[in-house]
Amino acid sequence: MVADDAPWTRAEFEDRLRAVGARHYHDRHPFNVRMNEGLLTVRELRRWITNRFDYQRHIPVKDALITAKFDTPALRRMWLRRIQDHDGAAEGDGGIERWLRLGEAAGLRRDTLLSGADVLPGVRLAVDGYVNFCRLHGPLEAVAASLTELNAPELMSRRIAAFEQHYTWIDPAGLAYFRARVAQGRRDSDEALPLVLDWARDRARQEKAVAALTFKCQVLWALLDAVEAAGRLDPTAHRDPA
Amino acid sequence: MVADDAPWTRAEFEDRLRAVGARHYHDRHPFNVRMNEGLLTVRELRRWITNRFDYQRHIPVKDALITAKFDTPALRRMWLRRIQDHDGAAEGDGGIERWLRLGEAAGLRRDTLLSGADVLPGVRLAVDGYVNFCRLHGPLEAVAASLTELNAPELMSRRIAAFEQHYTWIDPAGLAYFRARVAQGRRDSDEALPLVLDWARDRARQEKAVAALTFKCQVLWALLDAVEAAGRLDPTAHRDPA
Repeated sequence: MVADDAPWTRAEFEDRLRAVGARHYHDRHPFNVRMNEGLLTVRELRRWITNRFDYQRHIPVKDALITAKFDTPALRRMWLRRIQDHDGAAEGDGGIERWLRLGEAAGLRRDTLLSGADVLPGVRLAVDGYVNFCRLHGPLEAVAASLTELNAPELMSRRIAAFEQHYTWIDPAGLAYFRARVAQGRRDSDEALPLVLDWARDRARQEKAVAALTFKCQVLWALLDAVEAAGRLDPTAHRDPA
Repeated sequence: MVADDAPWTRAEFEDRLRAVGARHYHDRHPFNVRMNEGLLTVRELRRWITNRFDYQRHIPVKDALITAKFDTPALRRMWLRRIQDHDGAAEGDGGIERWLRLGEAAGLRRDTLLSGADVLPGVRLAVDGYVNFCRLHGPLEAVAASLTELNAPELMSRRIAAFEQHYTWIDPAGLAYFRARVAQGRRDSDEALPLVLDWARDRARQEKAVAALTFKCQVLWALLDAVEAAGRLDPTAHRDPA
């Protein structure tokens, strides 16, 4: 008989991590489903781009906090590359810049995006909650929370197809962020998953990793909840101002 | 009449920052003076290399914590380069690796250095104190604390000369860390000083910056105090075991 608190095998642990994404990742959120179905109005899509930018711009911050948790140059080098993916090697390069160009392609002003003025309180709370989770938890949980990257490449591929089909008012050049993330997300999760599998060898730590990934899915879900709720309050939400 | 709490001019503020280094930097510590005069025993020099390594290996950690405080890709890119200076672009590269080679050139084992087993409690407290200062304070104070780099290049140049003259039992190839830091330290302080001068425009913030730099000097001083005190307790300190 296996004790209730016996560690899961490596394969079972990985299955449980993947099951979190299958059940809780925000690809299943009604707002994301409507995005993929081409049902978002211009205003809704702009609201999402504006609010999601608050998440995007904090990715290097949480990755720097995670980098500070590692005690070897090899691990820090691995994680530093994530910061560079978003900040770029030079001005005008990197994921944050690509997101700003997505915004511009959707008719948003760069300075409005940078001001953060239109970010919803619920989005701010979700993003701050994730950054603080990474600030305050150990490396296992902070890295496990990053494993939403296991699901990101497929979401990005579907999103690119949906934008190209339904939101033709956005210049396809503006989709460069999504395109870059397909390969980056795959590489990120290929690196992070073995770390989590290696580091969580007892059941308590395995459960902490699963809980961390669940929390991260809730952050992304809460972000879309806030964006969707703002649309319901907006009397023009279902009229297309384009 | 100028009010007591009027901001210092930019030039006066810079003078006050430089005065901190002139008065409190650890180049004036008796242990460092003895190092430069060639008076350290093999055991003392090895003890210093072993203990200073605890500081070296935490530099990228505090720099990652500082990176996480910045809200623009440009500032984070600037600070990321410091992490890379110490962690290297690839395995076998970087300042931490160069310090390990200094240790090996001085007859220390790499695995002993990496274990941290011989690090003195006072050194650990000083290093943790510095890392936590950077963790808990804002960007102004964390960056101001880095301004000991204003004094580092001259200290490094004198140290290289002293090692080449007095400690000929250390292979000069082992001094690569010191050589790299002459230019790196100059570039680091050239970048950081304008940030501090720009960010601290009122007197209260200027005084916080001066206090942060003073604290950092005290960290480096306390590290040498601990190394020197261990030598006084060591009955073989003044016999040369080489």
